[in-house]
Amino acid sequence: MNFCNACGGRLVSKLPRDDDRERHVCSECGTVHYQNPKIVTGCLPVWKDSVLLCKRAIEPRRGFWTVPAGFMELDETVQQGAIRETWEEARARVDLLAPYALFNLPHVNQVYLIFRARLISPDFRPGPESQDVKLFGERSIPWDDLAFGTVRQTLQFYFQDRPQGRYPLRTGTILAEEGKFRFEAAPDDQLAQ
Amino acid sequence: MNFCNACGGRLVSKLPRDDDRERHVCSECGTVHYQNPKIVTGCLPVWKDSVLLCKRAIEPRRGFWTVPAGFMELDETVQQGAIRETWEEARARVDLLAPYALFNLPHVNQVYLIFRARLISPDFRPGPESQDVKLFGERSIPWDDLAFGTVRQTLQFYFQDRPQGRYPLRTGTILAEEGKFRFEAAPDDQLAQ
Repeated sequence: MNFCNACGGRLVSKLPRDDDRERHVCSECGTVHYQNPKIVTGCLPVWKDSVLLCKRAIEPRRGFWTVPAGFMELDETVQQGAIRETWEEARARVDLLAPYALFNLPHVNQVYLIFRARLISPDFRPGPESQDVKLFGERSIPWDDLAFGTVRQTLQFYFQDRPQGRYPLRTGTILAEEGKFRFEAAPDDQLAQ
Repeated sequence: MNFCNACGGRLVSKLPRDDDRERHVCSECGTVHYQNPKIVTGCLPVWKDSVLLCKRAIEPRRGFWTVPAGFMELDETVQQGAIRETWEEARARVDLLAPYALFNLPHVNQVYLIFRARLISPDFRPGPESQDVKLFGERSIPWDDLAFGTVRQTLQFYFQDRPQGRYPLRTGTILAEEGKFRFEAAPDDQLAQ
């Protein structure tokens, strides 16, 4: 961030009055440019005993498998965003059941929100951002070829919870430490109650 | 948004290749400037039979009562943000219990996430953004002087759920229609299961 998107003036890093952290502030018009984390919204689509995964056709992690998910857009709800991403990436229609994973990714300033969902029919095909879309049973999940730690963690929780038929909201943080990723359940994870 | 914050060039509204909606794109360096919703994180602090509310000292809704909440910052988790806001606005320390309200506010491009929380002690006082901080029993909630529809909705759900001692995550959307606000529960609200 170098220039003010309102007036084109130079940005300086400074502490605004009544604030407690430095912000990008315009040296010409004084506009404060806040930066905040973004929401990635998506779902885990289920059909009978299988879950739907998409093989990414784009970077990052091209060729690896993910659940349908992407950045929430303006003027939509998290639910609409999850349904939209599922259509864009897998050309699949879903009914959302409930929020299931709420993970922080502070190293990339994202919050990842995944719903459990039911495929309305077993009709799907790759959208432009996917090379392939497939249903996987628990024994055939491509654990070594998953795109992101968030996907791995969501699937682990799902297969752990499924025998009980209870799916509490799972909350926690993906921590990047020395180039490795580690999941830390939040103290408010509902299983800790 | 008029100018590119990377190079200072003029922004134009156009459809980037492989995208499906218009974005602000720099006419000089080609940078695409995405805009996404922001997360407001906070909590409903409870002490015995009472809940903690803050009387706002700043606009919007100066003089009206709210739960401690505010924009999630970079480099923090939603949980850390909720705890930070509670300290900033009410000088109170809390243990978060579980996510309780997840509301969309598409008319302002915000997602509102509120945790149920337990005050660690009945020590609190107004922070710089509050005129007053007080504990309210159910019968003394200032319903006519609440700052936001999100606060009203969170409190209504809380007092509705409290007799059962069960607090499912509540999800829905605050819709602004003809200058009025209306809450619409999401089909994935856990009570609809």
